[in-house]
Amino acid sequence: MSNPVQDLISKRVSAGLFSPGLQLERPAIERLIGLAMRAPSAYHLQNWRFIVADTDAAKQRLRAVSYNQSKVTEAAAVVIMVGTKPDADRLQADLARAVAASVLPRGIDAEWAAAVRAKYDGNPEAVRDEAIRSVSLAAATLMIAADSEGLATCPMNGFDPAGVAREFHLAADEIPVMLVAIGQIAPEAWSQKPRLPVAELLSYA
Amino acid sequence: MSNPVQDLISKRVSAGLFSPGLQLERPAIERLIGLAMRAPSAYHLQNWRFIVADTDAAKQRLRAVSYNQSKVTEAAAVVIMVGTKPDADRLQADLARAVAASVLPRGIDAEWAAAVRAKYDGNPEAVRDEAIRSVSLAAATLMIAADSEGLATCPMNGFDPAGVAREFHLAADEIPVMLVAIGQIAPEAWSQKPRLPVAELLSYA
Repeated sequence: MSNPVQDLISKRVSAGLFSPGLQLERPAIERLIGLAMRAPSAYHLQNWRFIVADTDAAKQRLRAVSYNQSKVTEAAAVVIMVGTKPDADRLQADLARAVAASVLPRGIDAEWAAAVRAKYDGNPEAVRDEAIRSVSLAAATLMIAADSEGLATCPMNGFDPAGVAREFHLAADEIPVMLVAIGQIAPEAWSQKPRLPVAELLSYA
Repeated sequence: MSNPVQDLISKRVSAGLFSPGLQLERPAIERLIGLAMRAPSAYHLQNWRFIVADTDAAKQRLRAVSYNQSKVTEAAAVVIMVGTKPDADRLQADLARAVAASVLPRGIDAEWAAAVRAKYDGNPEAVRDEAIRSVSLAAATLMIAADSEGLATCPMNGFDPAGVAREFHLAADEIPVMLVAIGQIAPEAWSQKPRLPVAELLSYA
């Protein structure tokens, strides 16, 4: 019953150490981000954007606001995964194009845009929750996509959000949700950490 | 440069409609949850648990607190993806076992448990953020794993969190982050929604 996708998932490991020296071409990074963007988001908000640090200078700047972790400079690229405020106007225009292309039914553009305004306008907790949820869905997708071509990845929460926002010019309503480092795993990196038994965490309603 | 994993990701779609009638055997569900649990979590917290509604009665109860959405009862199973409070004691014991098995270096169990206490104790926003982040990483992993065996999935945020907490006996410090419906997609379900251009959302630092 196994398959290549599940094999990959079952073996994945967060790379605690990278071997420096790998370069990722920007078209390869862009292809991976395109795959991350196939992740779902509530109302198809696509409430995310991606800032890539792939030069020595950019990685040094990021490392300075990431508790000086060596992973940041030893990875080939580190993606700052940014959650953005739901943009009902952009969504409405996006959906209108899909309606025009007969991908979505008529009226859904105005209906969802109104629902988005009602849910998120003036509700910073809902905005924050949705940013973290959407961006994390994209991050997992990005990591699996990168793993599948032999790259190693590590999600990182260890950074100073205010420092990242300042250094990388995030807007006031943008949230740096996590970093995803991509590179080649170092031989001495830890192997996969054991998981709790499924039976301990799964129940039937 | 494509591969089966990336092909799957690039074609995935959130199933807006399911065809009823599919049964998922519980061992298959447990295998999928085991794959979801390969997702990473900060400090290896594994701050998640999974409540599966796979009987008519359970799905009806869930539908009643999910704005009566038909997906809930037409899917074969719906997983309530629950974020839990970081448990430093459990983490310390987990890591100590990995240290004993030489998977992790000595001392990491006490070090990380202390860091977890410092970060999350008395900080409900950090607890909530981490719950959403970890559970969303697991949810994306679950969906890709299920998709890979020909199942269809749909992440759902459209539910009443208080109602879900009450009906499914969540603890006061647990957060229902999302539902993941799993089943067979209906022929009339919408196809994949177009994404924004990568160039619009990606920049280099």
